[in-house]
Amino acid sequence: MRNIRLTIQYDGTNYLGWQRQASTADTIQNIIEKTLGKILQEKVRITSAGRTDTGVHAAAQVANFKTSNPITLRKLQYGLNALLPDDIRVVSAASAEPDFHSRFSAREKTYQYTILNRPHSDVFCRNHVYHYSIAKLDVARMRLAASFLTGRHDFTSFKTTGVKRNRSNVRTLRRISISQKGSLIIIRLTGEGFLYKMCRGIVGTLIEIGRGRLAVNSVSSILGSRNRINAGPTAPARGLCLLKVRY
Amino acid sequence: MRNIRLTIQYDGTNYLGWQRQASTADTIQNIIEKTLGKILQEKVRITSAGRTDTGVHAAAQVANFKTSNPITLRKLQYGLNALLPDDIRVVSAASAEPDFHSRFSAREKTYQYTILNRPHSDVFCRNHVYHYSIAKLDVARMRLAASFLTGRHDFTSFKTTGVKRNRSNVRTLRRISISQKGSLIIIRLTGEGFLYKMCRGIVGTLIEIGRGRLAVNSVSSILGSRNRINAGPTAPARGLCLLKVRY
Repeated sequence: MRNIRLTIQYDGTNYLGWQRQASTADTIQNIIEKTLGKILQEKVRITSAGRTDTGVHAAAQVANFKTSNPITLRKLQYGLNALLPDDIRVVSAASAEPDFHSRFSAREKTYQYTILNRPHSDVFCRNHVYHYSIAKLDVARMRLAASFLTGRHDFTSFKTTGVKRNRSNVRTLRRISISQKGSLIIIRLTGEGFLYKMCRGIVGTLIEIGRGRLAVNSVSSILGSRNRINAGPTAPARGLCLLKVRY
Repeated sequence: MRNIRLTIQYDGTNYLGWQRQASTADTIQNIIEKTLGKILQEKVRITSAGRTDTGVHAAAQVANFKTSNPITLRKLQYGLNALLPDDIRVVSAASAEPDFHSRFSAREKTYQYTILNRPHSDVFCRNHVYHYSIAKLDVARMRLAASFLTGRHDFTSFKTTGVKRNRSNVRTLRRISISQKGSLIIIRLTGEGFLYKMCRGIVGTLIEIGRGRLAVNSVSSILGSRNRINAGPTAPARGLCLLKVRY
């Protein structure tokens, strides 16, 4: 059996997230599996590095699947891009080692969150940024607060509940970088793994701090409280993008 | 009467161009006039610097209209952006001199055409670039050819016929700049005025030259022939954007 690794880019605007759902065809996994099925003439199950939520984008999602079909990687990539809708693209198709697993082998993931902080929106990036016009954000405050969040912590306060699990909510957030280009604020979060909606919980909290509604040092007590109610709101999906997966 | 000047940004993907049409509501002018009508409670006619075609975008279209309504410019802008669809934004609203006319007062317009020259498309800019994967384009050849096009010429060979006019097809093309950023090729065309689909005719011809199907010095004979059939095909609308109007 061959193990094939795909790097996939998608605009999540029109999809109900990555993960296959029996009740709808409109997930990215559903569509890719269906398209692979057409090309390979067999039922294919694909695994991804991260299950992005409804409306979340990916610049380089990594996924893998097994097949015994001898199709060339070039034909596979061109075939997929010919049949997939134009908001999903296969950036590369490569052979992987037999034990490569896009989720379990991932060492580090980087998500990027983009805020457009000005009174009026922008038509060209409207689906890929969070247009925040309520207040001018103080990036220096946000950077300082972010420095309290990096490292190994229990991130219960930043994850969205709903999916009940008894697993640990301790994660290591390796880096948060915040850059500013004109009215764009770009937040990059790198870690081994993230809890459900954790990136968006962190961004929502950093926004409250940048706006001055929460103190810079409040993040420590928010972390300590292990209660979602103390953090800021979950930032909208459209600003989030899975940027890179490192193996 | 006040003369109000709007700077407008739009994603042309979902519209049948700028110009009002009686047969459809889906033109940008129709939608802006209807929205202005709601806000000002009067029938408004708006004039723009350039009538962009179906699918063409604008980063800074300029338009003006007259009204005796005393609404503040701030309220007008916020009101428009609250009511307009999110692919049309009013970037600014300002008072203009009584004799300001967005089309006749314009001294220079700059259009930008973006080509994505690589095998596979990009999901994030898919509606705003022309994905050209047939051949690798030689930008040096395109630049050289462009230098033959600048200046005062009869551009009959580059305009699309259909709209019959007895007016002169002589125009002054002040500058063409071609830059490259990775696989993006960005062509900027600046002139006093352009003929119907002239920018796209020029870009289509530069692509044929970049690809090697037309000689670099062919542009001179194409210009001289004054016959559309000798130039390259009209490049697709989605790559074109009205970038700037100078007064």
